[in-house]
Amino acid sequence: MKALFTLFIATAWLTPSLAYAQASHHSVVHDTKTLPSEILGGERNYAIYLPPSYQTSQRSYPVLYLLHGGGDDQTGWVQFGEVQHIADKAIANGTATPMVIVMPDANTGRRGYFNDIRGGWNYEDFFFKEFIPYIEKNYRVKSDKRYRAVAGLSMGGGGSFMYALHHPEVFSSACPLSASTGPLNLDDAKRRYNRPRRNEPDVKVEPVADEKIDEYLQQHSALKLVENLPADDIKSVRWYIDCGDDDFLYEGNSLVHIAMRKREIPHEYRVRDGGHRWSYWRSALPTVLSFVSESFHQN
Amino acid sequence: MKALFTLFIATAWLTPSLAYAQASHHSVVHDTKTLPSEILGGERNYAIYLPPSYQTSQRSYPVLYLLHGGGDDQTGWVQFGEVQHIADKAIANGTATPMVIVMPDANTGRRGYFNDIRGGWNYEDFFFKEFIPYIEKNYRVKSDKRYRAVAGLSMGGGGSFMYALHHPEVFSSACPLSASTGPLNLDDAKRRYNRPRRNEPDVKVEPVADEKIDEYLQQHSALKLVENLPADDIKSVRWYIDCGDDDFLYEGNSLVHIAMRKREIPHEYRVRDGGHRWSYWRSALPTVLSFVSESFHQN
Amino acid sequence: MKALFTLFIATAWLTPSLAYAQASHHSVVHDTKTLPSEILGGERNYAIYLPPSYQTSQRSYPVLYLLHGGGDDQTGWVQFGEVQHIADKAIANGTATPMVIVMPDANTGRRGYFNDIRGGWNYEDFFFKEFIPYIEKNYRVKSDKRYRAVAGLSMGGGGSFMYALHHPEVFSSACPLSASTGPLNLDDAKRRYNRPRRNEPDVKVEPVADEKIDEYLQQHSALKLVENLPADDIKSVRWYIDCGDDDFLYEGNSLVHIAMRKREIPHEYRVRDGGHRWSYWRSALPTVLSFVSESFHQN
Amino acid sequence: MKALFTLFIATAWLTPSLAYAQASHHSVVHDTKTLPSEILGGERNYAIYLPPSYQTSQRSYPVLYLLHGGGDDQTGWVQFGEVQHIADKAIANGTATPMVIVMPDANTGRRGYFNDIRGGWNYEDFFFKEFIPYIEKNYRVKSDKRYRAVAGLSMGGGGSFMYALHHPEVFSSACPLSASTGPLNLDDAKRRYNRPRRNEPDVKVEPVADEKIDEYLQQHSALKLVENLPADDIKSVRWYIDCGDDDFLYEGNSLVHIAMRKREIPHEYRVRDGGHRWSYWRSALPTVLSFVSESFHQN
Repeated sequence: MKALFTLFIATAWLTPSLAYAQASHHSVVHDTKTLPSEILGGERNYAIYLPPSYQTSQRSYPVLYLLHGGGDDQTGWVQFGEVQHIADKAIANGTATPMVIVMPDANTGRRGYFNDIRGGWNYEDFFFKEFIPYIEKNYRVKSDKRYRAVAGLSMGGGGSFMYALHHPEVFSSACPLSASTGPLNLDDAKRRYNRPRRNEPDVKVEPVADEKIDEYLQQHSALKLVENLPADDIKSVRWYIDCGDDDFLYEGNSLVHIAMRKREIPHEYRVRDGGHRWSYWRSALPTVLSFVSESFHQN
Repeated sequence: MKALFTLFIATAWLTPSLAYAQASHHSVVHDTKTLPSEILGGERNYAIYLPPSYQTSQRSYPVLYLLHGGGDDQTGWVQFGEVQHIADKAIANGTATPMVIVMPDANTGRRGYFNDIRGGWNYEDFFFKEFIPYIEKNYRVKSDKRYRAVAGLSMGGGGSFMYALHHPEVFSSACPLSASTGPLNLDDAKRRYNRPRRNEPDVKVEPVADEKIDEYLQQHSALKLVENLPADDIKSVRWYIDCGDDDFLYEGNSLVHIAMRKREIPHEYRVRDGGHRWSYWRSALPTVLSFVSESFHQN
Repeated sequence: MKALFTLFIATAWLTPSLAYAQASHHSVVHDTKTLPSEILGGERNYAIYLPPSYQTSQRSYPVLYLLHGGGDDQTGWVQFGEVQHIADKAIANGTATPMVIVMPDANTGRRGYFNDIRGGWNYEDFFFKEFIPYIEKNYRVKSDKRYRAVAGLSMGGGGSFMYALHHPEVFSSACPLSASTGPLNLDDAKRRYNRPRRNEPDVKVEPVADEKIDEYLQQHSALKLVENLPADDIKSVRWYIDCGDDDFLYEGNSLVHIAMRKREIPHEYRVRDGGHRWSYWRSALPTVLSFVSESFHQN
Repeated sequence: MKALFTLFIATAWLTPSLAYAQASHHSVVHDTKTLPSEILGGERNYAIYLPPSYQTSQRSYPVLYLLHGGGDDQTGWVQFGEVQHIADKAIANGTATPMVIVMPDANTGRRGYFNDIRGGWNYEDFFFKEFIPYIEKNYRVKSDKRYRAVAGLSMGGGGSFMYALHHPEVFSSACPLSASTGPLNLDDAKRRYNRPRRNEPDVKVEPVADEKIDEYLQQHSALKLVENLPADDIKSVRWYIDCGDDDFLYEGNSLVHIAMRKREIPHEYRVRDGGHRWSYWRSALPTVLSFVSESFHQN
């Protein structure tokens, strides 16, 4: 009886965090957690979805990095994307496996997921050297390529392309939605990289030499990377690319599809009815969760 | 028996916040919470609906202010309106996004949502200067225009019209149901403002000068405001107006529809089968929740 | 055995029209039947829907006169309105009683359902003196007020208003959809009646004296008639009025609703989501069939 | 026994048209009807689908010309495409309006829907000068642009593109599925037009001058026509273009989508999961029927 008695006392000592565990058969979302970053200097926000079983179990989970678009922040997929409702439903249906979904903020300081062409702001370095390690240290997530996926919309679709193309050893699946695929050529790149940044319209930017722009372009255009990287590297990632027939980003995504077909890189490609809007991405998310689960599940 | 006894003690030690956590996968409704008001003098009641994920997650939510009609109080939408059942179902269906629903009492002291024509009772001031700030400080609700909506029935439909027309910078959507749209002209206004108040039938009211009545009318008639305010201000709010074909308030709502059409102010307008009754408003509520979610969702 | 033998021989003699009878458990639509008209001079077209049981039974049926809009002809409700599919379904569901649906052409010669203000073209006379009698003579339809209804869209909604207001002794129900309710006042009437006809844009029209216009207006404005006719006459017809919130004819229909309410004339009134288009009318038709069936059924 | 014998005789006397009447509440498909052609010399086959109400009613119907692919003939959509089952279901659902579906053979003599580059075989002339007129004379189909649509798969998708681009005055909608969009450039065209025909592999073809090939290419490449025809002509047709992500015809269809977007020509474009196969086209057909019905319905 002693042991049982102690158990009951223990129950009385429940800490608040334990309290969550009691309610643990439901998923948990935080929309504003923070981590320190030396690379970017200061605190960075992220949101996180923990699946229904996370609090009660002691297992580890696969992880999806889900990137927001320009103008949003880490709360976008939570508020507009209904990530909790959609992931809960997909997991309950069995169309997706329980996974942790991590949504970093790429709106603070500079907007975007890349290292800046002019240096001094290395978001991509932060993402791979600080953010992923932080998540893998602080949450019960698996840390093999197989168990990591990246997806995102618009600017975050561009991030999905770039992260998986630059680091095919990190992700098993990549799902760019309505992705900004980057400049299509040098002229386009010169125009874009030499204009003021969207969220710093008054800060004059230093012109960059054409040679450097071209070099940067080769590394930050999904089309160039798909055309030029070793095919086996690209093939080691499973691709799900989706861009609506009314989306203004139709051209880059159509050309990436053509380029992948010409290099015989397996990929799922969808053009559905719709434009560059949240209704499109909400309706894409269930398929994304199912698609990345196929890697996690190892069919 | 000792052990079991201890269990009960332990349960008793649970803090209130822990108690919520245990019930946390269900929505929570309080029908009588209070806040202090300097403006109205004394404690004011409100009811509140917290969506199913509110207790387990650490995200913030959009908020709907839902106003009761004359003769009811803050419990009306809870008891007669089935707000919990209907909101739970809409959120589970995905036709509404999880949101906090706040229902203030406008039945205590004086009845109604306006500053009194004779002064001394400034409910509208209370609402904007004390109530909204209190809610935004004490609950995890977002505090941008996009994430605030107002809806209400009858007298509360009038409140919805007036609050969103007086403060289009505060709300992204407004849904007046079977709204009392205010006096249609000066004679009508004189009759109304110079008779005893409904819930103080024995208190003789001081007659008010015609000029002042007209001035007040211009600010408290939905029709006048829709005809005279800058169209861009009115258009910055999304409107959903619904009044049954058997409702005694048919004229004001029909005329507001005509006035909005003439000024080309986008609005949804519905006349369904029914009168001034709860069955009508309960059947309106799912559409209201879906309509305000479209702003919160950013389609 | 002789009798049986004869039966079989008879089967062999089947005429083609009898052949239809064999297939008679399905409805039949003709989109271009004709009748002679002395009043209008020449052949007039009509379409007709005969319910599934029409060919096998020898009973008589109630009848709905269903009027097309300006620019269409008698085939409009057949092709765009899906009258066969919708009526078949409503009758199969039991939400409508089997009825004959008659769709006259008001597009040939002059467009419209009225006697011309300048004389010489008396479509309304044709409708009541030739068309209804022809239908009642040539089809098994009942010929009491109770068993006749009129409905229509736009110009045909105006026809529905006028026919039922001019002849409340003829119809038990009237269902104007997105109705053109006629000029709202004399100035409006002068503008409309003195401009060239839509389908004869090059024919100069003779100006008509204001007095005559006013007289004509009083007889051809739904609003004036609703305001001025004996209430009991108007009440002897059951009304179902429906006009979308995006319809350009919002004002007249809203004002008729107000006028009917002020005179306490029972009527169903709906404002649903939509504009002046076939998708609106197709979605209205099931309710119209159900509404007119309530008179035919005598609840 | 005598009586029974007589019954059989009687049945034998039924005329063919009477036979239809007996079966009249079901759709009727013929997979091999013929018409004479002076232009092509000899009899030509076609298949036809008559909707369920065709035999009992006397109305006229809109018409869809549905083109088979290379290697098939007029029976392809009947046998492999399940046109009867799918159209019956769509009409019963109300997602498609009753329509006649006509499927010509383009496999006899020469394969294909075009006038031959070397002359002497003018299938396109046959289609517009003999086939459409024959159908409109012999069946109750409407003969306005609004009521005609064209769709087809692969080679028949190419035919759909070409017929609607050459004759935008004839069709209200065009739905090329997995379309062969024609050569992308002169080299491609030279290769294709100077090789033996697929169904006459042993017949040596006469080389054609480059200039003539280019001229022919300009008229028979969907891409060139979309880039060069007056935009208003192309816009007068509603487009539904669908080609799977695994289809070998991905490039032409992607480039036509890009070209249409650049010229701001409204069009629906879909890339679904799948290749160049009947399962893809069967799953496309319900949407095609619904899409063309939107024109026939006049939403």
